[in-house]
Amino acid sequence: MKVGLGGNSKDMRAIWLINGEVRMIDQRRLPTDLSIVAFSDVRDVAAAIRNMTIRGAPSIGAAAAYGMCLAALKGANLKEAAETLKSARPTANDLFYATDHMLQQIKDKKDPVEAAESYVQMIVDHCTRIGEYGAELINDGDRVMTHCNAGALATVDVGTALAPIRKARDQGKKIFVFVSETRPRFQGMQLTAWELLQEGIPHSIIADGASGHFMKSGVNIVIVGADRITANGDFANKIGTYEKAVLAKELNIPFYVAAPVSTFDLDTESGDKIVIEERSPEEITKIGPMNIAPVGSSAVNPAFDVTPARYVTGFITERGILKPMEIGRMR
Amino acid sequence: MKVGLGGNSKDMRAIWLINGEVRMIDQRRLPTDLSIVAFSDVRDVAAAIRNMTIRGAPSIGAAAAYGMCLAALKGANLKEAAETLKSARPTANDLFYATDHMLQQIKDKKDPVEAAESYVQMIVDHCTRIGEYGAELINDGDRVMTHCNAGALATVDVGTALAPIRKARDQGKKIFVFVSETRPRFQGMQLTAWELLQEGIPHSIIADGASGHFMKSGVNIVIVGADRITANGDFANKIGTYEKAVLAKELNIPFYVAAPVSTFDLDTESGDKIVIEERSPEEITKIGPMNIAPVGSSAVNPAFDVTPARYVTGFITERGILKPMEIGRMR
Repeated sequence: MKVGLGGNSKDMRAIWLINGEVRMIDQRRLPTDLSIVAFSDVRDVAAAIRNMTIRGAPSIGAAAAYGMCLAALKGANLKEAAETLKSARPTANDLFYATDHMLQQIKDKKDPVEAAESYVQMIVDHCTRIGEYGAELINDGDRVMTHCNAGALATVDVGTALAPIRKARDQGKKIFVFVSETRPRFQGMQLTAWELLQEGIPHSIIADGASGHFMKSGVNIVIVGADRITANGDFANKIGTYEKAVLAKELNIPFYVAAPVSTFDLDTESGDKIVIEERSPEEITKIGPMNIAPVGSSAVNPAFDVTPARYVTGFITERGILKPMEIGRMR
Repeated sequence: MKVGLGGNSKDMRAIWLINGEVRMIDQRRLPTDLSIVAFSDVRDVAAAIRNMTIRGAPSIGAAAAYGMCLAALKGANLKEAAETLKSARPTANDLFYATDHMLQQIKDKKDPVEAAESYVQMIVDHCTRIGEYGAELINDGDRVMTHCNAGALATVDVGTALAPIRKARDQGKKIFVFVSETRPRFQGMQLTAWELLQEGIPHSIIADGASGHFMKSGVNIVIVGADRITANGDFANKIGTYEKAVLAKELNIPFYVAAPVSTFDLDTESGDKIVIEERSPEEITKIGPMNIAPVGSSAVNPAFDVTPARYVTGFITERGILKPMEIGRMR
């Protein structure tokens, strides 16, 4: 992704390995500060996953791969390193997959740096292909709506939902992006808008509740990411996604989900089997240290919602665009 | 409305007249502080309208009526007083209506205190009747969703959307209310939740984007207020209302709009004729003095959206419940 405005713009990933160190953008400090943190111990990498210095399932997977690499380079106990990483956060499947993958690679006597870099490059390659397939769906002059951050920060580079947007711009298409702020954690306002700003892609931040208003008055396509897609085409994504899908159907706006094939969970039959993570009510009732709600009022804070397959026009993957009913073919 | 928790609870209005002073709850300081401010000069009342010490169209109308009363009691220039009040905010029709009504009453040699009190009591009586009609729609055990603040704070007392909720509770019905926080100004979290807390009505604050998730998993009725209802039954209300209406239709949840007859604008044919107020982008990009968005990203902040009549199950008014197609009868 491009980072820095104007003449000083340069390419950067959300996370990378250099000189025996893992470096990453501290996503908690965006958009105010672009701060790069460096770790040489796997326990510090696990802490960075836990405290959300880095977030987004593919980026967390990359952090785990690099973390295992650090442990291998130092001759640390690999089983302990794996356990430390896996205990960092409970839900991102990529964390477990990447850790186990690296354990196996090292056991098979592969070079740990090469194994980690190859895993991370695969993520970026998939995103690049998602961008190529997805850009075909975006026309010159389109107004695109997205939600939360499914950008380069979440996927090491390029992004999932933001990949077609970047690619369409590279193709010379003039596009405009509506970024819903994504309460309670503001990932739309603080991460997606930041990425678009670095790229010079025209956009506006809107309140989540304004999505319908702007969709009614002229959005051509909605593209979101996904945390998990089940065998029947239902999918879980950041809270607020389901509403946009229903509105898109009502207004005949194409609604696409951009996600690598690794997001598909074919062992889970349908969305009602997905357990929704409940996060702290304080993400809603506090802004920083400041309580803004009445003391005594409760808040409920589901992190995700489930959108039924019938609202999905198509899934943009690295293997092409699939209709929900075509998911069965992936087996 | 009830104010204060537990044994110290007492009845209070959003605004009242006593000893030649207008007193009102400073709504900008809720829910943190219950602060009562007092004004004896019409210019201070106009300033309180302008800086949103008091908000909500009927409450603004009440402030204007009391403001004119203060001017009359002091023997001030009534035309100047009216102009000062009318310039306070551009959109609330009640402000202009109440000011002109008081000018006429004083011209007709009516007692200014009696005239103002009678105007304000009419607002409260209408809300009370809205509560009675609306409570019939709420069943024991219902989960009700509302948006923004259409409560006692906005209407001197009782509320519009909150009136049926208060009345249903008084009838002994056990209900639960989902309060969408209502970005960007948080009137749901900071005012509606506060009112429900004072009344002891069980409720939870949710992010605006979570409305669909909770409606899908068990909301029985949605009740919102309205800022303006046109002749064909389209209506304008706080941004985020349209989304809830579309979701309610999709999920077969009854969707009601609670508003006094004075909200109906029969001279305007349909919702596409309503001009939507654009408010400052900083309401989205700043929390208090703190900028939380990338510097350079734009935000757009429409204060209202328009919901087409076909999404409305009924309008709860002081004259009973009307279907959109029955509005013509009101002429």
